[in-house]
Amino acid sequence: MTKVGILIYPKVEVLDFCGPFEVFRNVETVGKHPISIYTISERNEPIDAQGLSINPDHDFQTCPQLDILIVPGGNGRWLVEQAAYLEFVTRQTDAIQHLVSVCTGALLVAKAKLLEDGMAATTHMEGMEYLQELAPNARVLPDVRFTDNGKIIMSGGISAGIDSSLYLVKKLWGEQLARQIALYMEYDWNYTKSEQEYIRPVID
Amino acid sequence: MTKVGILIYPKVEVLDFCGPFEVFRNVETVGKHPISIYTISERNEPIDAQGLSINPDHDFQTCPQLDILIVPGGNGRWLVEQAAYLEFVTRQTDAIQHLVSVCTGALLVAKAKLLEDGMAATTHMEGMEYLQELAPNARVLPDVRFTDNGKIIMSGGISAGIDSSLYLVKKLWGEQLARQIALYMEYDWNYTKSEQEYIRPVID
Repeated sequence: MTKVGILIYPKVEVLDFCGPFEVFRNVETVGKHPISIYTISERNEPIDAQGLSINPDHDFQTCPQLDILIVPGGNGRWLVEQAAYLEFVTRQTDAIQHLVSVCTGALLVAKAKLLEDGMAATTHMEGMEYLQELAPNARVLPDVRFTDNGKIIMSGGISAGIDSSLYLVKKLWGEQLARQIALYMEYDWNYTKSEQEYIRPVID
Repeated sequence: MTKVGILIYPKVEVLDFCGPFEVFRNVETVGKHPISIYTISERNEPIDAQGLSINPDHDFQTCPQLDILIVPGGNGRWLVEQAAYLEFVTRQTDAIQHLVSVCTGALLVAKAKLLEDGMAATTHMEGMEYLQELAPNARVLPDVRFTDNGKIIMSGGISAGIDSSLYLVKKLWGEQLARQIALYMEYDWNYTKSEQEYIRPVID
C-alpha cells in the first residue's frame, strides 16, 4: 500500500493539489495498485482552499510516515513562515520516497533547506525570484514543466502538478500505466515532449 | 456578481469539478470580476469525492438561482437514478445562463431531457453509449473536447472540463481573460486548436 500525503492549508490553490490527487487516485482506479491518499493539515479542522472547504484526513500528529508527499502552492509566501509546516515536511522527508512540490509549494521545500547546491528547482512563474532568494545555490529553471532531482521533484505552476504526477507514476509503476491514466483522464500528456523539453537530468 | 454552482455527490471525480473550480476562481483572482462559487449537494453533509472530503456550501433547499451550473461526473450512472438531483438541475435550468456538464455528468443532463433533437453531446469515452441511449436524438460526438449548444455546454472526460470552462470564460468575459487565466494556471490551452477541432457549431 503506497501512502500519498497532500499538504493542505488556508488558501491552498485548488488545482495544485487536486491535479495530483486525481492522478494518484487513478493508480488504484485504473492500475489496481492499492493507494491511500491523505490530505494533511496542521489541525483537524476544515481548510478553506480559496472557497472550497476540505476536511483533512490527518493532522501533523496523526499522519503516518508517507511514501510520497505533495506540497501544493497558492499561498506559498504565507506557508514558508509557518514553523509547524516546516517541521512536518522536514520530519517526513528523511524516510520519504518522493517529495513533490507544485507551484509555490516550492518555497517551503527551499525554506526547509532541502535544495542542495546545484539542484534543479522550479515553481510558478511569479515565484521564481523568491525561490532563488530562499535557495541561492539551486539552479532555478523558469522554462521547465518540472524537474527531477531523484527524491525531490518540483513542478511549475498550478496545472504542472498533473504532469509531474504522471511522470512520477511512470517512474514508480511504469510508462504504460502513466499513459493509461492520462488517457482515462483525457489529458493531453505528451510524455515524449515532457521528457525531451521539460525534464532536466538528475544532478550528478 | 456571477453565481457559479458546482454539483457534488458521493464518488464525484475530483478533477471533474476542481478543474472548473480553478478556472472560475481565477475569473476573480486574475480578472477581478466578482464571482461566487458554491459547491452544492443534496444535504448539508460532507461529500466523499473518491477520498477527498468536501463540505458543500449549499444544499438543494438553500442554493440560490445560479448563473452557471457545473455538473461533474465520476459516478454518473448512480447520479441519473437520483430524483433529487434531477429535480434540482431541472429547476435551476430554466433561469440559468449556462449549464456545463463534465465527463459522465452528461448523463444527468440527458436524463433530465435537456438535450433537444440534434444537440451536440459528449461525455467521457466510457459513457458514450449510455449517453446515446438516454438521449437517442442527440448527436453524440466521441472525438470532441467539448460541445456548445448555446445554453448547454458539454465536456469530454475529466480534464476536458478545464477547456470548456476556459471557453465559457472567453464567451462571457472575452478571449483576453481566458488566455490570461490559462497562462496563470500554466495550462497548455490551445484556443485556436479548440475552436477549429473541438467545438461544433450551435445547432441551427
